[in-house]
Amino acid sequence: MLTRMSSLFLRTLREDPADAEVPSHRLLQRGGYVRRIAPGVYSWLPLGLRVLRNIERVVREEMDAIGAQEIQFPALLPREPYEATNRWTEYGPNLFRLKDRKGGDYLLGPTHEELFALTVKGEYSSYRDYPVILYQIQAKYRDEERPRAGILRGREFLMKDSYSFDLTDEGLVESYHLHRGAYIRIFERLELRYVIVSALSGAMGGSASEEFLAEAETGEDTYVRSTGSDYAANVEAVLTPAPPAQSIEDKPAAAVHHTPDTPTIDTLVAFFNDAGLGREFTSADTLKNVMVKTKAPGSTEWKLLGIGVPGDREVDMKRLEAAVYPDQVALLDEADFAAHSFLPKGYIGPVGLAANGVRYLVDPRVVPGTAWLTGADKPDHHILDLVCGRDFTPDGTIEAADVRPGDPSPDGTGPLEAARGIEIGHIFQLGRKFADVFSLDALGQDGKPVRITMGSYGIGVSRLVAAIAEQSHDGSGLIWPREVAPADVHLVIAGKSEEIRAGGEQLAADLDAAGLGVLLDDRTVSPGVKFADAELVGVPTIVVVGRGLANGVIEVKDRRSGERVEVPVESATSHLTDLVRSR
Amino acid sequence: MLTRMSSLFLRTLREDPADAEVPSHRLLQRGGYVRRIAPGVYSWLPLGLRVLRNIERVVREEMDAIGAQEIQFPALLPREPYEATNRWTEYGPNLFRLKDRKGGDYLLGPTHEELFALTVKGEYSSYRDYPVILYQIQAKYRDEERPRAGILRGREFLMKDSYSFDLTDEGLVESYHLHRGAYIRIFERLELRYVIVSALSGAMGGSASEEFLAEAETGEDTYVRSTGSDYAANVEAVLTPAPPAQSIEDKPAAAVHHTPDTPTIDTLVAFFNDAGLGREFTSADTLKNVMVKTKAPGSTEWKLLGIGVPGDREVDMKRLEAAVYPDQVALLDEADFAAHSFLPKGYIGPVGLAANGVRYLVDPRVVPGTAWLTGADKPDHHILDLVCGRDFTPDGTIEAADVRPGDPSPDGTGPLEAARGIEIGHIFQLGRKFADVFSLDALGQDGKPVRITMGSYGIGVSRLVAAIAEQSHDGSGLIWPREVAPADVHLVIAGKSEEIRAGGEQLAADLDAAGLGVLLDDRTVSPGVKFADAELVGVPTIVVVGRGLANGVIEVKDRRSGERVEVPVESATSHLTDLVRSR
Repeated sequence: MLTRMSSLFLRTLREDPADAEVPSHRLLQRGGYVRRIAPGVYSWLPLGLRVLRNIERVVREEMDAIGAQEIQFPALLPREPYEATNRWTEYGPNLFRLKDRKGGDYLLGPTHEELFALTVKGEYSSYRDYPVILYQIQAKYRDEERPRAGILRGREFLMKDSYSFDLTDEGLVESYHLHRGAYIRIFERLELRYVIVSALSGAMGGSASEEFLAEAETGEDTYVRSTGSDYAANVEAVLTPAPPAQSIEDKPAAAVHHTPDTPTIDTLVAFFNDAGLGREFTSADTLKNVMVKTKAPGSTEWKLLGIGVPGDREVDMKRLEAAVYPDQVALLDEADFAAHSFLPKGYIGPVGLAANGVRYLVDPRVVPGTAWLTGADKPDHHILDLVCGRDFTPDGTIEAADVRPGDPSPDGTGPLEAARGIEIGHIFQLGRKFADVFSLDALGQDGKPVRITMGSYGIGVSRLVAAIAEQSHDGSGLIWPREVAPADVHLVIAGKSEEIRAGGEQLAADLDAAGLGVLLDDRTVSPGVKFADAELVGVPTIVVVGRGLANGVIEVKDRRSGERVEVPVESATSHLTDLVRSR
Repeated sequence: MLTRMSSLFLRTLREDPADAEVPSHRLLQRGGYVRRIAPGVYSWLPLGLRVLRNIERVVREEMDAIGAQEIQFPALLPREPYEATNRWTEYGPNLFRLKDRKGGDYLLGPTHEELFALTVKGEYSSYRDYPVILYQIQAKYRDEERPRAGILRGREFLMKDSYSFDLTDEGLVESYHLHRGAYIRIFERLELRYVIVSALSGAMGGSASEEFLAEAETGEDTYVRSTGSDYAANVEAVLTPAPPAQSIEDKPAAAVHHTPDTPTIDTLVAFFNDAGLGREFTSADTLKNVMVKTKAPGSTEWKLLGIGVPGDREVDMKRLEAAVYPDQVALLDEADFAAHSFLPKGYIGPVGLAANGVRYLVDPRVVPGTAWLTGADKPDHHILDLVCGRDFTPDGTIEAADVRPGDPSPDGTGPLEAARGIEIGHIFQLGRKFADVFSLDALGQDGKPVRITMGSYGIGVSRLVAAIAEQSHDGSGLIWPREVAPADVHLVIAGKSEEIRAGGEQLAADLDAAGLGVLLDDRTVSPGVKFADAELVGVPTIVVVGRGLANGVIEVKDRRSGERVEVPVESATSHLTDLVRSR
C-alpha cells in the first residue's frame, strides 16, 4: 500500500502538548497518532489506527492459533446479569451506567464474564461440547477516577478479552497455560520487554493469576523482582520467607516496664536503649500491633482484627486488602477505639487481644521462639521479651507488612528490587464463581451435571500502542517494531528536481508492487521538515531519494540504530524487500 | 482456513425463535449467527462475525479506493459539540445519554458530524489541505422506540460513516458522486437488489440526498417507482407533476350554497350530485382545506398554515413534515380552533383564509383556472366554482398530498407503484450547516477564510447482514453471496467409514492449502442432520464426501440453484478453487 504524505490526514506537532505526562502520550500526539476528545477518551487518526489494527492482528492470530473462537458482544449491556453477580454494585463509580428511554438500566461493559457464561450456557449442554475458549476484541468502558497518560489509562479502550470453559480443574489449568503461551508469543512479536508477575497471593491460589507487565518507568504498576533469578511478583503476591523457629528455653521471662513518653517506635527503642539493660534494641525487635476491621461480602458486620508486624515495617494496605480478599478491610477510627475500651491506643499487645477474643494474625517473620518488645495493654506500659509460642499464640500469619528492596526473594535467590511496569495482560483462573451464579453446568457422561470452571484473560490492545511507544522511542520520536509499524518504509523525496521526484515515485511504485507498505513523503516542504517528521513518525526504515540519485544510489537508514547505507537504485527494491521480510 | 464443526461454537436451532418477525431474524438466529442480549442489542457468534467482517472488508476496500482515509472516534462522546449544534436536544429520546462519575454529560454517538468537523478544524488550516474524505467503521447507538426485526433495526449497530470536506459547492458534488459510485460498487459486490431514491424534496435541494434501499417486502421504508423507468423516490421526495393551467373565461361564477348535513367529502359530493345542477361531481372536484400550524427552529411561536388538496387526497404527514422542514408542523387541535373563530371547522375556504391573513399553500394540481367546490367560510355552506387565479390566489404550492400507486411518475414515464425497502445507505450533501456552527474555515489562496462545505454518508454495515439475508434465502435456510459467506465451501463427511472420513479430511486439507475457507462437518451426527445444517448455514457451495468416494467421486452442490455435479476426487481441489475464484 502506498500512502502519500501530501494527502494523508496527518499534521505533526512541533511542540509537546501541554497535557502530555509521559513520552508515549507526547509522541503519539506529536506524531499525529491520536487526539484527545474528552478525559480518557481518544480518537485514532490514520497512522494510529494502522498501528492499533496491526496489534489487533497479532493478538487475533495468536488467539486463533490456540483454538480460541472469536465472537463479539455489544458494549451496551443490560443490568440483570451484572446484578446477578453483584458487579453492578461492586464496580462502584467505575461503571458507566445509563438508562434507556423506557427507564431500563444499562451499563457499558467493563469486562464480559457474565455475558460469556450466559452465552455458553445458552448454546452448550453436554460434556462433549467442552472445553471451549471464546474471545472478542472490543471497546471497553471504565470510568476511571484519574484517566492518565493518554491511551495508557483510558475510559474507552480496546481490549481483547477471552474466557475458557472447562469441565475439570486440570482442564482449566491447561486452558490457562494455552493463554500464557499465546501471550508470550504476542508480546515477543511486539518486541516488548516484559515480566510475568504473580498477581495474587494465597487466598486465591498461588499461580491462579498472573499479570504481564511491560517494563516502563512511567508504569503505574509496581512490582518486585529478584536480582538473582526470573522471580517477579506484584507486591501483593510476595510471600514472606519465614525464618526458622527459635528455641524458647533460653529466652528471659517477659517483663512489663513503665514507659512514659514513648508514643512512637523510635522513642520506645530509644527508651529501652537508654534503660541500662545492657542490650541493644532496634525497631525490628518491637512488635507493632495494627488494629483493623473486616467485613465479609454480603455482611453488614465489621469484625476486629489485630495484625502484628515487626516495628521496622509498615502495614501495606494493598497487601492487606489482597490478603483478606474477598473481605473488605479498614483501619479502626477513633469511634472504634472509643467503643472498645480494652484497646489502649499505642499500647496494644497480643495478650490483651487474646484475653478479649480478638482475632490476631502476625507477619510470617513472627515465628515461635521469637521474643518481642510490645504493648502491655495499658497506657504508658510496654512488655519486654514477650515470646511467641510461650507468652502468646497468634491465630495465624498474614501477608500485610510492606515489601522492600533488599528483602530476600521468596525463591531464595537473593534480594528483591522494586520496578515499575504497565499492565498489558492478565490471565486468571476464575474457577466456578460465575458458573455458580448462573448454574452453568454440562450434562456429564454419567448423566449428572458437571459445574463448569472458567478462566478469564485480557490484553489491553489500545494500551499496547502506548506501552510499545513507552519502550521504543528516542529524543527524535517513535521507533515502531516492524510488526506494528504504520508502514514498512518511509520514503523521503529529498530534492525538488524532476529527476529526484520521478526517482522517488518510481521506487515507491516498485515497493508498493512488491507488496510493501510505503509512506511516501511527496510534499513540497523542505527536506529538513521531512527528515524530522520521518524520525517523529517512527517507521523502522527510512529511505532517502536525494542527491545521491545522480550517482545511482539511494540512502537507507535504520530508524532505531541510526545506521545509514547507500544502496544502488537498481537493487533498492530487492534490498528493502529483504530487509522488511527478514523480521 | 479450516473450521471444524465438531469444535465450532455453533448450535443451530430446529425451531423458529418466538420473537422472530422477519425471515432474516429467524434464519440468522436458527443458523447460529446472532443472539439477542437485550431489545435491539445482539451478540455475533463466530459465523455471524465472519459475515460481518466480510461486509466490513468490502466497504473498507471501496472507501479506500475513492481515497477516503479511515480513522476512528470513540463511541463515548462529550455533550458540548452536540450542544453546539443543538442535536443534544434535537435527538430527543433517541439519544443514549449518561453521566460520568464527576457528573459530566456524555452521549453514545449516533453519528459523528460534530467530531469530524472539529477534528478537521484541529488538523487543517490551509486551502491546500482540502478536499479530504474521512471515514470510520464503528458501533453506533440509537435508542429506537421500537427496535425490530433483530439486527435490521438495532440500538447498537455497526455503521460506516464518512464525511467529505470541500472548499466549493462543486467539490462537494464531486465528493458526493465519488461516494455514490463507491456505494454502487459495494452493493453490487454484495449482490444486493437495490434502488437509489431521492430522499428529500425541494427545500433541501433536489439531488442533495439519496437513499440506497435494498428491495425487501419486510422493509420499513416505503418508496415509489415508475413502472416505465428507473425513477424511484422516497414518498417524501415525489414531486407532483402539475397539469397545464386552464382558461378562466369559460368558468361559471362562484356561487354559495346552503349545504346542511355535509360533514364529509362523500356527503358533500352526494349533496351536489342530488342538487339537480345537471353536473356530475367527484371528490376530486372538491378542495379540502387542512389547517396546520408550523414553528421555525428556535422559535416558540406557532403560525397558522392552510393547505389545500383535492378532496380525493389525504394530507400525508411525512410528506408535509419534509415539505416544511426545518420547521415543525402539527395539526390544529380543538383549542386552536376555539382560539380562531374565523375558522368554521368543516367549512373553511381559501377566501376566508386570505381575508384573515392566513398563509395558504395548495397541492401542485391546483393550477390557475381550476374550479373547485370548497368551504364558504361559514357553517353549513359551501361554495361552487371557486376558480384559482380568479376567486383566490394561493401563496404557493406544497407537496403534502399523499402519493398513490397509479399516480403519474414525475419523469413522465408512466404510473408509479409502491414498494418497500431496507435503507442500507444514505448520501447527503450537508453543506455548511456544521461548518458554520464550528467556524470551520480554510485560509484561502487570497488570504481570506473559505467556509468549508461538508457531505455525510452512511452505510449500515450490520444491517447489511440482515438485508442480504432478507433477499437471499429459501425455505431451507440462508444463501450467502460468495463475497460475504462465512466459508467458501461447506464440506460434509457423509458416512462413518474410515475411508470416507479420511477422504473428507484429505480434501479439506487440500482446499485449506489452496487458500479456500472450509467449513468441515466432521461431527458424528447423521448425514441428514449435516445436510439440514448445511442448507441452513448457507455457504454457497456444499461438498459431500460420501458413498460416491468408492467410485472416485464427490458431489458438489450449488446452494442457491440446488444443482449437483459429481466431480472426480483427483480434480476436486482444482474444480472447487476455480468455482470459488470465478466470483
